[in-house]
Amino acid sequence: MLSSNRMSLMREEIRQQPNVLDRTLRLELRNIEKLKKRLAVKPPRMIVLAARGTSDNAALFGRYLLEIATGIPVSLAAPSIFTLYGANLKFDDLLVVAISQSGESTDTNLVLEKAKAGGAFTIGITNESASALAELADHVFLVRAGREKSVAATKTYTGQLLALYMIAYALGANLKTDDLRHLPQWAYDALRLENEIRERAGRYRFMNHAVVVGRGVNYSNAYEFALKMMETCYVVAERFSSADFLHGPIAMVEQSFPIFLFGPGGVTWPSMVEMRERLVGLRAETLMITDASNRAAAKLDKQTVVVIPAKLRHSGPLPDDLFTPIPYIVPAQLFAASLAVEKGFDPDKPRTLSKVTRTL
Amino acid sequence: MLSSNRMSLMREEIRQQPNVLDRTLRLELRNIEKLKKRLAVKPPRMIVLAARGTSDNAALFGRYLLEIATGIPVSLAAPSIFTLYGANLKFDDLLVVAISQSGESTDTNLVLEKAKAGGAFTIGITNESASALAELADHVFLVRAGREKSVAATKTYTGQLLALYMIAYALGANLKTDDLRHLPQWAYDALRLENEIRERAGRYRFMNHAVVVGRGVNYSNAYEFALKMMETCYVVAERFSSADFLHGPIAMVEQSFPIFLFGPGGVTWPSMVEMRERLVGLRAETLMITDASNRAAAKLDKQTVVVIPAKLRHSGPLPDDLFTPIPYIVPAQLFAASLAVEKGFDPDKPRTLSKVTRTL
Repeated sequence: MLSSNRMSLMREEIRQQPNVLDRTLRLELRNIEKLKKRLAVKPPRMIVLAARGTSDNAALFGRYLLEIATGIPVSLAAPSIFTLYGANLKFDDLLVVAISQSGESTDTNLVLEKAKAGGAFTIGITNESASALAELADHVFLVRAGREKSVAATKTYTGQLLALYMIAYALGANLKTDDLRHLPQWAYDALRLENEIRERAGRYRFMNHAVVVGRGVNYSNAYEFALKMMETCYVVAERFSSADFLHGPIAMVEQSFPIFLFGPGGVTWPSMVEMRERLVGLRAETLMITDASNRAAAKLDKQTVVVIPAKLRHSGPLPDDLFTPIPYIVPAQLFAASLAVEKGFDPDKPRTLSKVTRTL
Repeated sequence: MLSSNRMSLMREEIRQQPNVLDRTLRLELRNIEKLKKRLAVKPPRMIVLAARGTSDNAALFGRYLLEIATGIPVSLAAPSIFTLYGANLKFDDLLVVAISQSGESTDTNLVLEKAKAGGAFTIGITNESASALAELADHVFLVRAGREKSVAATKTYTGQLLALYMIAYALGANLKTDDLRHLPQWAYDALRLENEIRERAGRYRFMNHAVVVGRGVNYSNAYEFALKMMETCYVVAERFSSADFLHGPIAMVEQSFPIFLFGPGGVTWPSMVEMRERLVGLRAETLMITDASNRAAAKLDKQTVVVIPAKLRHSGPLPDDLFTPIPYIVPAQLFAASLAVEKGFDPDKPRTLSKVTRTL
């Protein structure tokens, strides 16, 4: 149990995110121009993303971002195909990106090694410059988060999302680096919700299960929010896209069932509103995360909406919601950190877990 | 509520599976030789699988099977990238497979349409010969399940798995059609567990949440078992690979937490045993599905193992567990059908759901 006076490392690290994003952006921008030139020589036919845990949630974001912004097909690697089944893939014209906070994830490193031997161009996204992954990859993208002490990853997740934007840029996406410069400020704006979120968390003291719904570029946030609640609050938290949720799992929903939704304005908004209306009809308890640019959300019952106090608008040709995932995960991280304390748990020391997980 | 005298349609359809598999195999074998010739002319650089709900779980199996058996990279489509974000993918040398029981799933059909227009070769796997999907695809693989009346899909799932084996064969996998001929018998052998499963289900009358763990080719079965429990028993059922489960979610597990595992012999066995030992250490309640060829499982406490009374061995060069997913899902389907009745629900009429779900 965390004494109420001490701030958790998790909360400290959540607060560091604007600085981490700013530092990573500044220091990695010049590397990214080099990568851009290199990828222009031989554009990949396909992209494979390999990761586990929180990094795999970042990969799920990359899967959407890269297909939407570059048109190159993307696949999320299933590491056991290599580590257990010993299969060989046709890797020659592929780009393979491994994502790992520690850079010491045995299975994702093995995927990268196999891919490199098979002729793929490889990128490693990691927080540790002295790691096996950094040693192995053709190009290393460093998340400049400083050491992550909390077992529950927060600042490395948003750092990994930033890295994926920069890789999209290097692959020729119509994405301005100026738009990326908004992200540290937007993360800061989201942090202004800290007190509101702490107050809201008390209501969920006795919540045992939950569903998180996200769609498109925020689908990965549904996974990440659910994972944070599983790890730090021991809530049985499921995660779905709104479309998948309608294909069966919605049958679970009864009166008072708690459901969290990521609801940015833009192309996914109509499906999230429709989903929310069905859930309200089932008398579920919903809480939606959105931002001040989404005027439609202002019409909803205030008790059921968390509004990031900034308009997350960008100037480019890409979809409206493309830059929402980093600021949107911040209130979710704060919620998990607060709820853990409400429930009497120390979010920095989830039972059964350690920081580096090695699996094959 | 289902009266205890009437057998549910779900149970009837679970029982039909050996016949469905046998019929589908016989009638589709000649078509598959045609497909094999066609694919040999221009082998695809990559495979994309598009589906929703239970069919998407079948696709998850296909993702493992096709990479393991053919070495061609596989991706699971994210339909919203096309339906909401309007993105264009580079489709020209791809094979795109849409899977839909009804053949009327709006979003997966749209993915197939876009892929076809972009130059991909397209295959539809469906139970309905007169559907939009059957009309649209370059090659149609018909699951000969007869009409599926239960909202909870069972016989079309195993039929879809069979279709994916046959597509692997058509892509040149070292897979003998003779090995496929075991599958109807193995499904029948699994059905012999019906009474044992019915008796076991009573114990779970008050289970509100659960985790299902599967790995490799049985990872999709973890999704499908969890979905059946969500749809018909309203249990908040999560699904993980054993590796992902260790990367965070295992923190949820406390004494008596119910966990179901798919545990075939072969390459995934050591990781499942290790996982099970950790769970027993946490005093969780585990139940593992395995078969008579897995001698290591005979050493485990009988109360915690369901053994399919047949040796699921094949003669080919592919991994030992490659043909386990169809027989292994049968006891899981039976469990969901029995548990729904124990809980006083009608598994044929899940609240909130209808048979055809249209999403964009």
